Amino acid sequence: MNKLTGLFLLSGSSPSDTNIHYLSGFTAPDPFLFLKTNSASYLVVSAMEKGRAENQSHSKTHVFTPSELGLSRKNSGKVINQIIALIKKSKIRYVQIPSDFPAGIFQALTKMGVNISIHKKSVCPERSIKTQAEISLIRVSQHATATAMKAAMELIRSARIDREQRLRIGKEFLTSEKVRRLIHKTLIDHDCAGIETIVAGGDQATDPHERGHGQLYAGQAIILDIFPRHEKSGYWGDMTRTICRGPAAPELKKLYNAVKAAQSAALRTVRPGLCADDVHSAAKTEFERRGYETTEIDGRHVGFIHGTGHGVGLDIHEHPRVGTSGETLEVGNVITVEPGLYYPGLGGVRIEDTIVVTAKGWRYLASCEKKFEWL
Amino acid sequence: MNKLTGLFLLSGSSPSDTNIHYLSGFTAPDPFLFLKTNSASYLVVSAMEKGRAENQSHSKTHVFTPSELGLSRKNSGKVINQIIALIKKSKIRYVQIPSDFPAGIFQALTKMGVNISIHKKSVCPERSIKTQAEISLIRVSQHATATAMKAAMELIRSARIDREQRLRIGKEFLTSEKVRRLIHKTLIDHDCAGIETIVAGGDQATDPHERGHGQLYAGQAIILDIFPRHEKSGYWGDMTRTICRGPAAPELKKLYNAVKAAQSAALRTVRPGLCADDVHSAAKTEFERRGYETTEIDGRHVGFIHGTGHGVGLDIHEHPRVGTSGETLEVGNVITVEPGLYYPGLGGVRIEDTIVVTAKGWRYLASCEKKFEWL
Repeated sequence: MNKLTGLFLLSGSSPSDTNIHYLSGFTAPDPFLFLKTNSASYLVVSAMEKGRAENQSHSKTHVFTPSELGLSRKNSGKVINQIIALIKKSKIRYVQIPSDFPAGIFQALTKMGVNISIHKKSVCPERSIKTQAEISLIRVSQHATATAMKAAMELIRSARIDREQRLRIGKEFLTSEKVRRLIHKTLIDHDCAGIETIVAGGDQATDPHERGHGQLYAGQAIILDIFPRHEKSGYWGDMTRTICRGPAAPELKKLYNAVKAAQSAALRTVRPGLCADDVHSAAKTEFERRGYETTEIDGRHVGFIHGTGHGVGLDIHEHPRVGTSGETLEVGNVITVEPGLYYPGLGGVRIEDTIVVTAKGWRYLASCEKKFEWL
Repeated sequence: MNKLTGLFLLSGSSPSDTNIHYLSGFTAPDPFLFLKTNSASYLVVSAMEKGRAENQSHSKTHVFTPSELGLSRKNSGKVINQIIALIKKSKIRYVQIPSDFPAGIFQALTKMGVNISIHKKSVCPERSIKTQAEISLIRVSQHATATAMKAAMELIRSARIDREQRLRIGKEFLTSEKVRRLIHKTLIDHDCAGIETIVAGGDQATDPHERGHGQLYAGQAIILDIFPRHEKSGYWGDMTRTICRGPAAPELKKLYNAVKAAQSAALRTVRPGLCADDVHSAAKTEFERRGYETTEIDGRHVGFIHGTGHGVGLDIHEHPRVGTSGETLEVGNVITVEPGLYYPGLGGVRIEDTIVVTAKGWRYLASCEKKFEWL
């Protein structure tokens, strides 16, 4: 990027939202414009947001309202007008936009003769290498996650089993919804928000995107996947445990032990300089060695049907991907390691931790017991 | 749209996310593709999501995985390939995309010679007219909102006032954070999630986008603005009250009464066929009549610095806007009416209800007391 080039980002879509948060320090509920040149950054926000934008944004960020850019009240809300005004103000000649920039604005600017091109590379590749300050913030979120996990496990463990194998607390039935509520309330006590938390038992857990609903039973594998965002910092945590209240069938215990072994095998490989695909392969190999097949049965994918992990930061899913994308691990990466096995009729098991890659290998960002069967 | 034309939507940006939710019934954490022609709808989701997509989507929606579209595993994740495959499958010739579609994909498709154009109109104008089923769902969210509001007001009212005018519960200081936590926990008990809830007292409340933090005091106007999303239905609620623990200064009481009168004046105008701007004007006129000026002091906008309201549905801010956009109210619109006044040094007051426009006028979707001073 030479000094005549500026990169425009508009909030309101992923991943631009978190890139703007990362680059400017500012976030807002309504869309706003951000411009980065190689000497300065600019924010265009409504008059109402100006004070907050100035307080929250990094130094070297110039905050303008539409009227300060010379726009009349009538035209002030139109992003295209804001961009044209900001091109003049910042004296740039070449405009770049990320791939997720709205096509409608791209087309309009092109028609107006603006020198515009799509920035093909990642806007903030540096985001995958976390600073010490960022690692501390993710650790805070991950500690909240572990605390909520422990509360949920304790609730399930404390349940009694009725004659129909249903879990109950006192006289009330224990449902996925009740466990989820406890998790979310615990997260709130730690300034975190959980939205799509998974509490899924039995066959529900074999669909990795099913959040879980209804009665929980003894003898089922229950997946607890908690991934909250810290309300102030915006950084996420991510952790999964699978537990069973009451005795588990031998087949299910074997399944759990395979996932635990695969996670250990994957974790053992983690070190800077390694291709992240090798972490995924380690988990895969462990499953294959134990005879767990990944295939399609009656149109449903079963076995180890997802990647081993992903980066965690201001987005819950970010770089590096731990799967088959060929990215290289570096010191300061924060990633999840979360192999899983899913077989309808038997159950689903996933174990996930969020770790930081260090010069010597890796470290957990928070710890939480891994024990399956609670008799 | 003729029968050879298809409109592609990609999740991951606003407002496409909620348009897809509205049109297909399906939502997912990761981006996915949706195509609407005038005879059918299509979803392209990962194999992992297929079962859930088929269960949740409306009938007449065809669900495909990339492999079912003939894409190899290596190319399956690329949206461009999915679009090309779906163009063949659906036999369309002309492709439309909404304005918020990613520019990078738009450019790539253009270069490939696809007949593509940007759909200039609103994708789902019908969303602003709610069905009875939708109104019931918003009512559920709004009842949760009112319940959380009552809990928050009760907590503030029950606070004692120490010598330094600080609010306390027992020995502990009452802060914005504590009130917000109670609100969020109450919302969770009603399957709703609140994220950016505002609990802001004194001068904090004069910046309408400041969420509020720290100690709450007697004699301050405290704005409580609660807008949760129902975790299952996806519909939002929205309500604001302003209260004062202990005696309020006469100037502050006058301010509150002006906002209450302006809200009443605005509500009195609401009926189908009316230009929504007239609702805004009614509030504005009431403020002017009472001598409350909207202006700029030391670079800060003061007075009535925002619109009177907005539509509420699957988005927290949707059509119709109640401000200066010139939209016409229709039976089935769900809107907020929320005038406010903000003067640093004195305080901020906003009163907001969510209402449905009916043939005879309008109805509240949930009720909650409006009383300022709690001695």
